Amino acid sequence: MPHKIAILGASGYTGAELVRIIATHPAMEIVGLSGDRKAGMEMAEVFPHLRHLTLPALEKIEDMDFSGVELAFCALPHATSQAVIRDLPRNLKVVDLSADFRLRDPAEYEKWYGKPHAAVELQKEAVYGLTEFYRDEIRAARLVAGTGCNAATGQYAIRPLIEASVIDLDDIILDLKAGVSGAGRSLKENLLHAELSGGTHPYSAGGTHRHLGEFDQEFSKLADRPVRIQFTPHLMPFNRGILATVYVKGDPQAVHKALADRYAAEVFLEVLPFGALPSTRSVAGSNFVHIGVSGDRIAGRAIVVAALDNLAKGSSGQAIQNANLMLGIEETAGLMLAPVFP
Amino acid sequence: MPHKIAILGASGYTGAELVRIIATHPAMEIVGLSGDRKAGMEMAEVFPHLRHLTLPALEKIEDMDFSGVELAFCALPHATSQAVIRDLPRNLKVVDLSADFRLRDPAEYEKWYGKPHAAVELQKEAVYGLTEFYRDEIRAARLVAGTGCNAATGQYAIRPLIEASVIDLDDIILDLKAGVSGAGRSLKENLLHAELSGGTHPYSAGGTHRHLGEFDQEFSKLADRPVRIQFTPHLMPFNRGILATVYVKGDPQAVHKALADRYAAEVFLEVLPFGALPSTRSVAGSNFVHIGVSGDRIAGRAIVVAALDNLAKGSSGQAIQNANLMLGIEETAGLMLAPVFP
Amino acid sequence: MPHKIAILGASGYTGAELVRIIATHPAMEIVGLSGDRKAGMEMAEVFPHLRHLTLPALEKIEDMDFSGVELAFCALPHATSQAVIRDLPRNLKVVDLSADFRLRDPAEYEKWYGKPHAAVELQKEAVYGLTEFYRDEIRAARLVAGTGCNAATGQYAIRPLIEASVIDLDDIILDLKAGVSGAGRSLKENLLHAELSGGTHPYSAGGTHRHLGEFDQEFSKLADRPVRIQFTPHLMPFNRGILATVYVKGDPQAVHKALADRYAAEVFLEVLPFGALPSTRSVAGSNFVHIGVSGDRIAGRAIVVAALDNLAKGSSGQAIQNANLMLGIEETAGLMLAPVFP
Amino acid sequence: MPHKIAILGASGYTGAELVRIIATHPAMEIVGLSGDRKAGMEMAEVFPHLRHLTLPALEKIEDMDFSGVELAFCALPHATSQAVIRDLPRNLKVVDLSADFRLRDPAEYEKWYGKPHAAVELQKEAVYGLTEFYRDEIRAARLVAGTGCNAATGQYAIRPLIEASVIDLDDIILDLKAGVSGAGRSLKENLLHAELSGGTHPYSAGGTHRHLGEFDQEFSKLADRPVRIQFTPHLMPFNRGILATVYVKGDPQAVHKALADRYAAEVFLEVLPFGALPSTRSVAGSNFVHIGVSGDRIAGRAIVVAALDNLAKGSSGQAIQNANLMLGIEETAGLMLAPVFP
Repeated sequence: MPHKIAILGASGYTGAELVRIIATHPAMEIVGLSGDRKAGMEMAEVFPHLRHLTLPALEKIEDMDFSGVELAFCALPHATSQAVIRDLPRNLKVVDLSADFRLRDPAEYEKWYGKPHAAVELQKEAVYGLTEFYRDEIRAARLVAGTGCNAATGQYAIRPLIEASVIDLDDIILDLKAGVSGAGRSLKENLLHAELSGGTHPYSAGGTHRHLGEFDQEFSKLADRPVRIQFTPHLMPFNRGILATVYVKGDPQAVHKALADRYAAEVFLEVLPFGALPSTRSVAGSNFVHIGVSGDRIAGRAIVVAALDNLAKGSSGQAIQNANLMLGIEETAGLMLAPVFP
Repeated sequence: MPHKIAILGASGYTGAELVRIIATHPAMEIVGLSGDRKAGMEMAEVFPHLRHLTLPALEKIEDMDFSGVELAFCALPHATSQAVIRDLPRNLKVVDLSADFRLRDPAEYEKWYGKPHAAVELQKEAVYGLTEFYRDEIRAARLVAGTGCNAATGQYAIRPLIEASVIDLDDIILDLKAGVSGAGRSLKENLLHAELSGGTHPYSAGGTHRHLGEFDQEFSKLADRPVRIQFTPHLMPFNRGILATVYVKGDPQAVHKALADRYAAEVFLEVLPFGALPSTRSVAGSNFVHIGVSGDRIAGRAIVVAALDNLAKGSSGQAIQNANLMLGIEETAGLMLAPVFP
Repeated sequence: MPHKIAILGASGYTGAELVRIIATHPAMEIVGLSGDRKAGMEMAEVFPHLRHLTLPALEKIEDMDFSGVELAFCALPHATSQAVIRDLPRNLKVVDLSADFRLRDPAEYEKWYGKPHAAVELQKEAVYGLTEFYRDEIRAARLVAGTGCNAATGQYAIRPLIEASVIDLDDIILDLKAGVSGAGRSLKENLLHAELSGGTHPYSAGGTHRHLGEFDQEFSKLADRPVRIQFTPHLMPFNRGILATVYVKGDPQAVHKALADRYAAEVFLEVLPFGALPSTRSVAGSNFVHIGVSGDRIAGRAIVVAALDNLAKGSSGQAIQNANLMLGIEETAGLMLAPVFP
Repeated sequence: MPHKIAILGASGYTGAELVRIIATHPAMEIVGLSGDRKAGMEMAEVFPHLRHLTLPALEKIEDMDFSGVELAFCALPHATSQAVIRDLPRNLKVVDLSADFRLRDPAEYEKWYGKPHAAVELQKEAVYGLTEFYRDEIRAARLVAGTGCNAATGQYAIRPLIEASVIDLDDIILDLKAGVSGAGRSLKENLLHAELSGGTHPYSAGGTHRHLGEFDQEFSKLADRPVRIQFTPHLMPFNRGILATVYVKGDPQAVHKALADRYAAEVFLEVLPFGALPSTRSVAGSNFVHIGVSGDRIAGRAIVVAALDNLAKGSSGQAIQNANLMLGIEETAGLMLAPVFP
């Protein structure tokens, strides 16, 4: 008997990616799909690539019947998410893909998102969804907060270095290259093909990107002292993939060892041989993360490069991995899809 | 017990695509991989996106041990393929992805490929691999010849119209848009990113493209008279996908009905509602074909548009579908992967 | 003394392209720029690639001072254009880049654009802006209507064939591949990079695309009888360029000769040697048109392929070429910029 | 009377870009083009986008007649270049676009390029071609060595900061994003569209990229002490453009002021208002450089981002700017072409 799940906010890219992965998941069945503005439409009209699937039509959340539903993925926009989740049945497990429950401190939430949190109790309850680092808590959780896709990429590269105390905590620079699907399906001029293709530019530079809230929270907790990194994302003319180039001060071999050791038993994390660096193309369409380490001609400097697919491991794949844990399913179920190249 | 298979020519794109799909196939196990120039290398070095898989190293064909192997996929270049397959053990089932066994008439082969066939007996034995039209023969075959990817796309759009006698056989125009991965991994100036991206151009125009040999053979056989179509492929600045725009003379509703009826029971063929036309993006990464029909303001003219992924349904997916039949496995096994969008 | 010109609707792509070309034009000076929603902004904010230029700030049309202005380019949306142009000073020469004055017959306008024309008198006065075919009329005109970019491409390929009576007028098929900048800077889901890149699809198929109004008008006038072509545009994942693949019935050599003869003296029209076919990449960024002709293995069939840059020769370049004529400047002034490749 | 120039190595991208720019240059005339493997061909066959130009056919260098030629651009591969230039007539001015004369120290050349220099005397004579910093020397030079395209981008961002002593010289990190045309027209697997599009990866990381030789030479000379930076280039899925993201320690406002002051009088260098960061799209196709500066939430950290077109300002545009100086022409002649967007 498959576990019955619902997807709230199924008309965006992370919603579609959830459906794509669950399509071949052995133990989940989609019984409800919401899409506010597109309520009444079939998923095949909104996403023609899913037309071979038998799926419920999109409906409004208020019209959804949650009886029998065990878990809901919530792929709604920030702020909307917290209000919706607050009103869901209490016995429903929830994996939220928005930013609403990532930060534990209400003041931090307000600082980065510009308004007070509307569901502070839930915020406290929520478990941070970086699976490989919160596995036990996630298994026991009712509400899991999916991480930011950039935040996940950066943390996969940096967390083991903090844990292993092999780098200078005061000089971490994360130069990130982000595929455009991370910006979602929203209609913005800079996301048009004519504007975006054929070049690149940085955005949210100088310490203003909201995912810094997650970095601050997680790295400071790990280090048991405040850690502030520099983070400059660049918008890339491709759809899927994030590449994080991290500049740290520390012994490159020690850095590599810390990563290799930490991820030795992890199915989805592949640490490349020392000196080899990854490409986003090698993980696109999959739940895998590739991480490489290089030294520099300057002694004591290391470069860590991590690549993942923002829609999959950075968002919907992670969500399903967490849901698997919450439902007591094999953690990797449905997620062993190989990357698509070329 | 999974069926043991080998892949000859695993260092090209169709080879990698076979591995990608078989990675989650429930009933196949890869026990041998050949790659002549890359013999001795691990697949992860040649295709880093496959590094999470446990695979045999690449070896030379002459070093391969075929005992225990039930079926070999042969993803070698034209001409090489026929010589290799001729020398394989006779009890080995073979799905060939090259052009070598597509044409049944040795004279036609020589006309289109410029030299005599080196394995004429095998050429006669081979079954043409367009699954939905040769299913029974494929099930019983030892050697199946995969179709050309353009040839498959065109035939999915046109065959039912010939079968149903709803179009003028002397005026069929196929304007095709082909993603670049169809050209393989060969080093040609016009395949460089700097040359190819950002524009388009026709190639092999005027009745010179080799896939016309397949169209001629198949359409003439179906119609029981010579049929010659016009075919102009255009090279597209994207990696996966073929879009066939077919201009025919006939009643558009009858054309649509012929397609809808013919494919009603086919899992991988989706005929869209009349007037809706497909996008390559909706099938990329999958074994599905989307087909749409439009009328024109000029009465008696119809436009059929078919879209598929050249590496999947147009090549490696088709090959696996055929292998499933040959091995007595469920035809769709391993092939229900949803398209990847965006 | 340069001619003083103004650009109405300078915040769109054709507006920016006018500025780009005029930046190195020897005899034009931009003295006014309008942009309704962006009034008050500097052009460098709207289009950072133009920041090296000294330009007037964007203002509302009603605030513009037209004294001293000799000619206005009007790059406004359909329908807006006719209302604005109706109210401009009568002594101002106008090159309109919208669809508003392309069709001479008010009934045809209403049929294709869905509402009555608001400036019927001007509609009659306007000269159709396909320079190489209306040169004398344009030289004398006060109001010139820029052609549709697809309409220009198709006409360059087809007009000489009608003039020379070398093709069957009842069987002309235009399969067109259109770069996305032709759709402008409007915020539509299907124009997002995540939706558009990596694939293609047809749109406005079956005789519904508005540029058919221009084809009908022009081809019927040329042939002195009604001519209706089939026209299927496809949206391409690149920014600049249109490729028109035209299937006609006629002798290929005669078709080639008709084109070569007709354009022998034209600076911007390059007819390739028989059998060579063009690429959009070879004209991008320029005012040039490349045209090639191929025969087919079926006797009596010819394929004509034309390529141009929709923003340049298909729109803003054409507009400047026409303005040069209207102002008595050398026709090619400012327009000899070479295509940009790669 | 235009200055007669020749281009050696005209069949590569920098050769084509020289021709493109010179096509509208008011004071240069191309009288000779060499292309070894393509000798005998017309430029229009090698680069169809140049077919509107009247150009000499490609010939072998040994067949070229240099009488009357004032200046030669040498766009040959490394190592070839030094041998060819050594044998050119002594009265010929030369702008070399290869790496052969960039490094003044023969030992450094050998270290980075792996073999001894074959024309050490010329190496000493050559002037480094970063125009805005070597203008007077270039004006008087017979042989100018064009800079590396990445080296130019990084230096535009960093040199003024060293000159003004506003940053820590021991902690400069250059994370660079490089369009693929910088890799030239060579047939390499990783430059294929199917391999390159849709993602990104770093290359030559860890202090191994040859352009570090230039950074070392120039920054150390400027600072009058050894300066070693970290430099990680990433290959981008677009054709033109380099974005350099530079992480420095220093006061952001002082950093911005140093750049703004230094480039205040420079035509081609645009320093954006503090906080605004550039895009490669805004300079593509042009000789302009856009530079922006941002602070960080961490005090004392600044981010400098510079963007230029690697084929234009990073290579062929720079070469023409230098040639203008060497020929006594207006420095900006032929180079005011506006960027092409979209």
